[in-house]
Amino acid sequence: MLGRLNHVGVATPSLAEAVETYKRLFGATVISDVIELPERGVRVQFVDTPNSQVELLEPMGENSPIAAFLEANPRGGQHHLCFEVEEINAAKADMEAKGAKVVSGPYIGAHGTPVIFVHPKDVHGVLIELMETPRH
Amino acid sequence: MLGRLNHVGVATPSLAEAVETYKRLFGATVISDVIELPERGVRVQFVDTPNSQVELLEPMGENSPIAAFLEANPRGGQHHLCFEVEEINAAKADMEAKGAKVVSGPYIGAHGTPVIFVHPKDVHGVLIELMETPRH
Repeated sequence: MLGRLNHVGVATPSLAEAVETYKRLFGATVISDVIELPERGVRVQFVDTPNSQVELLEPMGENSPIAAFLEANPRGGQHHLCFEVEEINAAKADMEAKGAKVVSGPYIGAHGTPVIFVHPKDVHGVLIELMETPRH
Repeated sequence: MLGRLNHVGVATPSLAEAVETYKRLFGATVISDVIELPERGVRVQFVDTPNSQVELLEPMGENSPIAAFLEANPRGGQHHLCFEVEEINAAKADMEAKGAKVVSGPYIGAHGTPVIFVHPKDVHGVLIELMETPRH
């Protein structure tokens, strides 16, 4: 079966402003600290819903992978969907066997487990992150 | 608290092709019938994850509200996020009191409960659907 929708990635020019909007408009209350991922070129912050999360992503440093996205969408916007998988190496091999392009990973993602990204051209325009389910 | 992430809306030129991809690449097994919403200008199909859903949207008829989106993104892409709320009229009044523009609704959505949409300019580039939680 398709794995859990761990989170929806939303790129934004400002974590602080976006968090404020999710609080003020929609009553968000459970919000993570800012997590810096300098090797990935992003700072992230998770806004919890009861069943999933919105992952806000802000560019960090030069050559951020979301810089081009924000140039095309200066206000920000939806960036990727993240589904959970059992084991990342098997998931990567599975994607490649099925002809889907893995554009990055595996590397350790914001939740501390390995992730890969699958090219949107192979998923009808949607960038897909696959992430090993956290075991805790 | 922020409501459940009921689903992520993904626009696509072809429900059939997108459903096939979610099955073939990611092992999706629980997929709704096609739901036609001619008054809304879309056909939709839900792909279930254990905790949420991907709502695939295909244009239907003239003047579909997703036609412009697909012109800008011919392969398709992420279109909106849907959070659940207790009661739609209260949610609409709340959005308006907070200065967020409600662009459509309330009307009955694909899950049979009333929904509204909030303009992306008020949510950092993300189109937000608010939907009354189904009671069943």
